[in-house]
Amino acid sequence: MANISKKVSWSSRGDDRGERTPLLNGAEDSKLNRQDIIRSRPKEIPHNEKLLSLKYESLDYDNSENQLFLEEERRMSQMGFRCLEITRWVICGLIGLLTGLIACLIDIAVENLAGLKYFAVKQNIEKFTELGGLSLSLILWAVLNSAFVMVGAIIVAFFEPIAAGSGIPQIKCYLNGVKVPRVVRLKTLVVKVFGVICSVAGGLAVGKEGPMIHSGAVVAAGVSQGRSTSLKKDFKMFEYFRRDTEKRDFVSAGAAAGVSAAFGAPVGGVLFSLEEGASFWNQLLTWRIFFASMVSSFTLNFFLSIYHQKPGELSSPGLINFGRFDSDSVQYNLYEIPLFIIMGALGGILGALFNVLNYWLTIFRIRYIHRPCLQVMEAMLVAAVTATVSFAMIYFSTECQPLGPDHTEEYPLQLFCADGEYNAMATAFFNTPERSVRSLFHNPPGTYNPMTLGVFTLAYFLLAVWTYGLTVSAGVFIPSLLIGAAWGRLFGILLSFITTSKSIWADPGKYALIGAAAQLGGIVRMTLSLTVILVEATGNVTYGFPIMLVLMTAKIVGDYFVEGLYDIHIKLQSVPFLHWEAPPTSHWLTAREVMSSPVTCFNRIEKVGTIVDVLSNTSTNHNGFPVVTHVTEIDEPSKLCGLVLRSQLIVLLKHKVFVERASSRFSQRKLQLKDFRDAYPRFPPIQSIHVSQDERECMMDLTEFMNPTPYTVPQETSLPRVFKLFRALGLRHLVVVDNENRVVGLVTRKDLARYHLGKDGLEELHLAQT
Amino acid sequence: MANISKKVSWSSRGDDRGERTPLLNGAEDSKLNRQDIIRSRPKEIPHNEKLLSLKYESLDYDNSENQLFLEEERRMSQMGFRCLEITRWVICGLIGLLTGLIACLIDIAVENLAGLKYFAVKQNIEKFTELGGLSLSLILWAVLNSAFVMVGAIIVAFFEPIAAGSGIPQIKCYLNGVKVPRVVRLKTLVVKVFGVICSVAGGLAVGKEGPMIHSGAVVAAGVSQGRSTSLKKDFKMFEYFRRDTEKRDFVSAGAAAGVSAAFGAPVGGVLFSLEEGASFWNQLLTWRIFFASMVSSFTLNFFLSIYHQKPGELSSPGLINFGRFDSDSVQYNLYEIPLFIIMGALGGILGALFNVLNYWLTIFRIRYIHRPCLQVMEAMLVAAVTATVSFAMIYFSTECQPLGPDHTEEYPLQLFCADGEYNAMATAFFNTPERSVRSLFHNPPGTYNPMTLGVFTLAYFLLAVWTYGLTVSAGVFIPSLLIGAAWGRLFGILLSFITTSKSIWADPGKYALIGAAAQLGGIVRMTLSLTVILVEATGNVTYGFPIMLVLMTAKIVGDYFVEGLYDIHIKLQSVPFLHWEAPPTSHWLTAREVMSSPVTCFNRIEKVGTIVDVLSNTSTNHNGFPVVTHVTEIDEPSKLCGLVLRSQLIVLLKHKVFVERASSRFSQRKLQLKDFRDAYPRFPPIQSIHVSQDERECMMDLTEFMNPTPYTVPQETSLPRVFKLFRALGLRHLVVVDNENRVVGLVTRKDLARYHLGKDGLEELHLAQT
Repeated sequence: MANISKKVSWSSRGDDRGERTPLLNGAEDSKLNRQDIIRSRPKEIPHNEKLLSLKYESLDYDNSENQLFLEEERRMSQMGFRCLEITRWVICGLIGLLTGLIACLIDIAVENLAGLKYFAVKQNIEKFTELGGLSLSLILWAVLNSAFVMVGAIIVAFFEPIAAGSGIPQIKCYLNGVKVPRVVRLKTLVVKVFGVICSVAGGLAVGKEGPMIHSGAVVAAGVSQGRSTSLKKDFKMFEYFRRDTEKRDFVSAGAAAGVSAAFGAPVGGVLFSLEEGASFWNQLLTWRIFFASMVSSFTLNFFLSIYHQKPGELSSPGLINFGRFDSDSVQYNLYEIPLFIIMGALGGILGALFNVLNYWLTIFRIRYIHRPCLQVMEAMLVAAVTATVSFAMIYFSTECQPLGPDHTEEYPLQLFCADGEYNAMATAFFNTPERSVRSLFHNPPGTYNPMTLGVFTLAYFLLAVWTYGLTVSAGVFIPSLLIGAAWGRLFGILLSFITTSKSIWADPGKYALIGAAAQLGGIVRMTLSLTVILVEATGNVTYGFPIMLVLMTAKIVGDYFVEGLYDIHIKLQSVPFLHWEAPPTSHWLTAREVMSSPVTCFNRIEKVGTIVDVLSNTSTNHNGFPVVTHVTEIDEPSKLCGLVLRSQLIVLLKHKVFVERASSRFSQRKLQLKDFRDAYPRFPPIQSIHVSQDERECMMDLTEFMNPTPYTVPQETSLPRVFKLFRALGLRHLVVVDNENRVVGLVTRKDLARYHLGKDGLEELHLAQT
Repeated sequence: MANISKKVSWSSRGDDRGERTPLLNGAEDSKLNRQDIIRSRPKEIPHNEKLLSLKYESLDYDNSENQLFLEEERRMSQMGFRCLEITRWVICGLIGLLTGLIACLIDIAVENLAGLKYFAVKQNIEKFTELGGLSLSLILWAVLNSAFVMVGAIIVAFFEPIAAGSGIPQIKCYLNGVKVPRVVRLKTLVVKVFGVICSVAGGLAVGKEGPMIHSGAVVAAGVSQGRSTSLKKDFKMFEYFRRDTEKRDFVSAGAAAGVSAAFGAPVGGVLFSLEEGASFWNQLLTWRIFFASMVSSFTLNFFLSIYHQKPGELSSPGLINFGRFDSDSVQYNLYEIPLFIIMGALGGILGALFNVLNYWLTIFRIRYIHRPCLQVMEAMLVAAVTATVSFAMIYFSTECQPLGPDHTEEYPLQLFCADGEYNAMATAFFNTPERSVRSLFHNPPGTYNPMTLGVFTLAYFLLAVWTYGLTVSAGVFIPSLLIGAAWGRLFGILLSFITTSKSIWADPGKYALIGAAAQLGGIVRMTLSLTVILVEATGNVTYGFPIMLVLMTAKIVGDYFVEGLYDIHIKLQSVPFLHWEAPPTSHWLTAREVMSSPVTCFNRIEKVGTIVDVLSNTSTNHNGFPVVTHVTEIDEPSKLCGLVLRSQLIVLLKHKVFVERASSRFSQRKLQLKDFRDAYPRFPPIQSIHVSQDERECMMDLTEFMNPTPYTVPQETSLPRVFKLFRALGLRHLVVVDNENRVVGLVTRKDLARYHLGKDGLEELHLAQT
């Protein structure tokens, strides 16, 4: 059982390896260390939301302005800075281009695979409708679905578990400043892309939009670093950008480009990145993000227009095409606004129900379905059930619709209908979800009867709940929109029944749109960016106000019951996620209560052995160490003179930048900023660095490498004030000093994320090794 | 000459008054003070951009977390904070509502007044076309224009000079954190609204959109404070929000609501506020801003729909109605993109020309046209000239167009045309600029001949250059769009001449739109928000990518020559404006070089006389004072223990919160946070506070009122790092300490704004009293 929580967590690999590496550093207390390791192994802690994992590290948005850095910056001319800025724009353009191409690939692959599948099944159904024996068709359909999903689930479960799901929670965490292991690696991207193709082609109740956001982020992280550690290939480009600060900026651009490609919503993409990530708003950065978004949606449109043999027609939107809402036919009136608000509330309630069901399911999965093969089997089961439910719905539906002259249906199923007619339920089920949404928005009144819609809503709702959280790469946007569009259209039809003047409520498509917004808002609880995304995806700004109202209502109502889906999954992973502000009632707390203390400090000139011992101590596993003038006694605070990071010390140890006791200064090897950048971001573990007994007696001069001006706060600073400084500057370590500038504590992300507002006021989360 | 610079500057009033108040505080060195005042009077410094005015104070976005504040926050329950949050939403709703109503008022008033004017002139022209003697019509037109403009100019020049212009530079400064005197007062709003009605009705080459942004900001500042100091009315509401932090947030919402009402662009409004103002991005704040924007555009649409007798039709856009661009007719192709980029470059060049001409004109105005009556006369002259030019253009134009069956022209002028035809030039000139833009966008091909457009572009360009900067309340958006639309349409027509297949370039309206974007971008140099504003105003997202490309090209090309129009005017006012980042080559500088030193500090328990003397010293005029443990000697730094503001000291002095030497502690009057809020924002000058000779001997205990945890940086911190902290947190004072936590300097906005990147690298601006 001890292993359970590890298997399903986002970061189940990697950590183990480092720990298993034998200690090479000749530390005398290696035996003790080993005990520490054992002690620090995950204990049996039941998964719940009141924990904060110690496993996640923070990104460092604050440059370590040490001497090396300052020297480099000072050497650089104005022209140099201009070149850097141009390079940033070029990278953003590349990010947009590649993200757009990936979106193209996914779109074309899904369309072709799904086309093949539906063609085969349709042929089969048509053959057996006359002969009898439709159960064979069902089996064919179920087997095809399961086969696709099996491939998708296997690559995710066995090769890269972090590629599961939509990736939006992980990207949210990354942009928030949490280092989620392996989230922006090339392997993750490959698994993600092929996984999502398989799961959508496999007919699951999933969308391909969420994964696009993750894909964009990975592309950005890769391109901006100019190398791939997985492929062991270094292009020697963009070396200046090899640090968290720059990388995180590019990842925001990548996420925005992903949204832009997915929904054809460049502005929505920018707002998504800002809503989720940026705490420090910078105009130039925002422009670059916008540029990446624009290039991405342009690339997608350009290549898709060629694919669809209408080259050069660039006006089509992104992956999901809601179709244009014509402004004249869908005007709204003042008296419809209360109806919209009611729909918003309904969306909030249904969304909360979705989230609660999915929460329980996720807990169940964490407990019992943690082996990869079980996970693959579950995914295949869901695929088969989805096919069966769909088949049953189509089979038992007796509603027939005349086949239009313009053949708007891609795969019309005649089944038991008369010639020239097709089965109405098949429009919704025998189709990719994107097409179903579009037909719910745009099909003329009378296409669906209320019964069909009601049953469809219920069935699809349950399927979608079951599907989200499977070990496949898939998003929740489209299923949510589909559920909402179905009950929204139902709502519109019912309205036209209960009122006399039918002309006013003539267009159920309008209510389908509002319903879709309400349901999606109720599940994911985004407002600003989602409003813009939906407005851009429908290509019509008229609906801005009602969509905003609906999303806000859905959020307020939903928040009353339970958090948003992404936040639930983030909490289940115990990620130290920082919200926008400290809890309002936290003025009682000061830095003194919040900080970690005592702090492990180093002297400006420190013994190598001490450093190795401190770094090897896995029970503390600190990442930042204040440098002080002179440590006299263990508990006596000394004056702060800098801050040095574990990663910097590792590089120093690796390059053996030691000063021998006797002949100081001149024997020290000159280290460049390049050495630090080359090691970024996968700094070797301390255990892999060999330090001999003699070397342990040497000294290390940290003056040149430490950040001499770390941000500090006095002990009496209130938590909201500490929080504001920490969040606004994207810090990783904040030193707490007394009024003599002596180090008394250190505030890190976990110290701040610990406090949150529960039902009964301020609560404190527990730290755990999960 | 000494007075010149004062008359035309944004803040010409008010300052004088305080200084002329006789000193009542019984300071012994009042004579010396008086000399100081004389010495600090504005010297004869020629206006140029290399100065930084000492006149502008900073807003304080950082809460002073003193004991009173913390006690209040700690007393407040969770429910209390929730109520506050709801109140904020309510206020944002109110801001949106009122801004929308003001936009309505302006729109309806302008439409009616302009309608009356054009009706009268049209009648007159028609009468005299047959009889001969059209010069009488010209005189009538010119006199009507001048009359309107006279009224508008008089109220601005004599009552509230800060209401001149579009108000966008002022709002930019305010959101940047500069306290521009009187910019958000009720009187300013009234003058602005009536001024803009007069100047648009007066036929000047101006728009009513810029002033809406200013109006929204004033509304926000007023509503959020729950009182009007001008009207001496305190509603005792929203007292919690009476501080810079909260007020500035609301002003961002107001500015966004203004943009939203002006252009029907709620998202554009949010982005405008963020692009110009927010450095610290907060999700909740952004949602509120978005809400205000949405309510504002909704209100406007709602009331205008009633006014236009189509109640309930809420789909129309804002004040300016670009008309819907139909997606099918205006698709673009890949090969058009280079053309768009060329147009962008052209827009950049023309915009730079506009800005340079306007810069020289502004310098001329600063030198010679600084008296209110001269300003009024200039405005009237421009109005008359505008009428004359328009008349001449119409008169000499021989182009006639058939009158369409649907009468799209509001005031078709037949003049010398045959029956059933109208003068084409009159569409552009005999019309409000908004209507002219719309007809340039949407009139079918062939409506204008190239000659007409060319002459119109030239004439209107010169008129617009002359008009911007007049002492009337007016915006530059619409004239820019109009110029751009004219040459854009011309460009489109020429394209269809030089190519054989005319069908591709069939729609010159598309090029009019691109030209409008290019010209506006070349003048104001906004990119992100402007893209979104234009996309929202046209109601079509298809054009997002080309508009963005064009705006970026225009910005890059324009920036090569000269800055944007708003930035030029901000620089001419020598405002200490902080950009997004420190100049890239400023890593050489550290806090030590940047800071002001020595700093005037106070003891924790300080003699009243000392405080009064320091505050009365107009030669230094400090606003923030570090509080230290014990000042021993004048130049010996002491340990920092807090920061106290001039405004706080003033309130303390006013309430005589003194401790008598003998009986300390119990005689001290208990002061509430309310006392500080009541005095906000117009704290009385020190000269109006009477302190007797006895009281001067008393002591003041600052412990309770000072901020005990001000942000500090060490002396070695690099300028970019200081800048980042300062900007991200919106600080007003940043204390520089040595490694013993002793105060060595103070960094304020002016210390940072001083450094900017000139042609030859880093330059330092001079401080001046202008």
